[in-house]
Amino acid sequence: MAIKMYDLCGAEAERRFSPFCWRTRMALAHKGLDVETVPWRFTEKDKLPQPNAGRVPVIIDGDRVVHESIAIADYLEERYADRPSLFGGETGRALTRFVQNWTDTVVLNNLIRLVLVDIHGHLDPADQEYFRQDREKRFGATLEDVVKDREARLPAFRASLDPLRRTIDRQDFVGGRAPSYADYIVFGAFQWARAISNFELLAADDPVRAWRRRMLDLYDGLACRTPAYGD
Amino acid sequence: MAIKMYDLCGAEAERRFSPFCWRTRMALAHKGLDVETVPWRFTEKDKLPQPNAGRVPVIIDGDRVVHESIAIADYLEERYADRPSLFGGETGRALTRFVQNWTDTVVLNNLIRLVLVDIHGHLDPADQEYFRQDREKRFGATLEDVVKDREARLPAFRASLDPLRRTIDRQDFVGGRAPSYADYIVFGAFQWARAISNFELLAADDPVRAWRRRMLDLYDGLACRTPAYGD
Repeated sequence: MAIKMYDLCGAEAERRFSPFCWRTRMALAHKGLDVETVPWRFTEKDKLPQPNAGRVPVIIDGDRVVHESIAIADYLEERYADRPSLFGGETGRALTRFVQNWTDTVVLNNLIRLVLVDIHGHLDPADQEYFRQDREKRFGATLEDVVKDREARLPAFRASLDPLRRTIDRQDFVGGRAPSYADYIVFGAFQWARAISNFELLAADDPVRAWRRRMLDLYDGLACRTPAYGD
Repeated sequence: MAIKMYDLCGAEAERRFSPFCWRTRMALAHKGLDVETVPWRFTEKDKLPQPNAGRVPVIIDGDRVVHESIAIADYLEERYADRPSLFGGETGRALTRFVQNWTDTVVLNNLIRLVLVDIHGHLDPADQEYFRQDREKRFGATLEDVVKDREARLPAFRASLDPLRRTIDRQDFVGGRAPSYADYIVFGAFQWARAISNFELLAADDPVRAWRRRMLDLYDGLACRTPAYGD
């Protein structure tokens, strides 16, 4: 039986844009597992398995319900230990946490300030109302003001990617010759951006862009199947 | 026969301060290998095995000469495969590269601008002359001017450590329950600073400081044996 996965979507059910859901989606493909995704919107907290924190991803695998991308990755690695490893062992799992903490504190924190208003533009009306209220309170500014000087901030964002850039300029993937869960963590951020914003984050000749292309090509172009902008 | 390691020193032969040499020193201890270090100064290029690029670390293991910390770590991992692993497998090795690229582009690049002049203060006269000329040309400023607003830049430096801070706040080491080569890479930066500068980089209650303490305690306090400031 396919694993069921609740996956954040926009006004269009097929537009999947959560960076955390993309981590899980790619991890399921890495493990070669069948998945049935359930499109889910911010305001549909009642539709998730109970109890829930109103967040996705959530997966249901037989009688197991697992919440949050980190817990899901750990669950899949243990439950499907005979399939390709997401971490490459305990040290790999520990180092993956470092990549995750870098992605969360550096990439996502800066990226949100470049594309926040574009998320709003892709939500259905009920979610738009929730999203504007929630995020404007969090940022202490209108969605439009949060992104308004984004062109000026783009060079600093690109420079902040140096650790990633140097890594994937010298090896195909963060995980080495083959992608690992660390790749899916970082890729989720870029996939999020391209699914909801036409603001191009990466210069045409940036090695990070070539790596993103390699990620988009994985698993028969899985990540290309959602509506998105650019390559 | 002990492995011979050329190790950067200050005016005092026992003051060892190269961040790259500390990576190697800790890696040798991790592998449980005997080492005889040879104190070496910037201007002693003739004393290194020929040919050389005028840089340390360099190790001599029997008839093998290996230059540069990355190559040395790879050599030790392969040659002493039966001893505790530095990387925990191929994925771990690849992810260690990411930690290295983060350390080199974020930590070392910012740290040098906080402690540059203090390195000069610990060199012998011949090295001082070389160092001032070489580094002032590289930075386009006097050593004193490079560091002059360091108090003002300290909060940004501390914030840049967030990926490390989150990681070692949730697990003892970057490598997980036990230290791995990724820990030695990051630790080398802090050990460099404390060996040549009394400018305290970390707040007393910073989890990074507790991790640094754990690193200092490894291998019977190996890293405490060089003259240094603070904990």
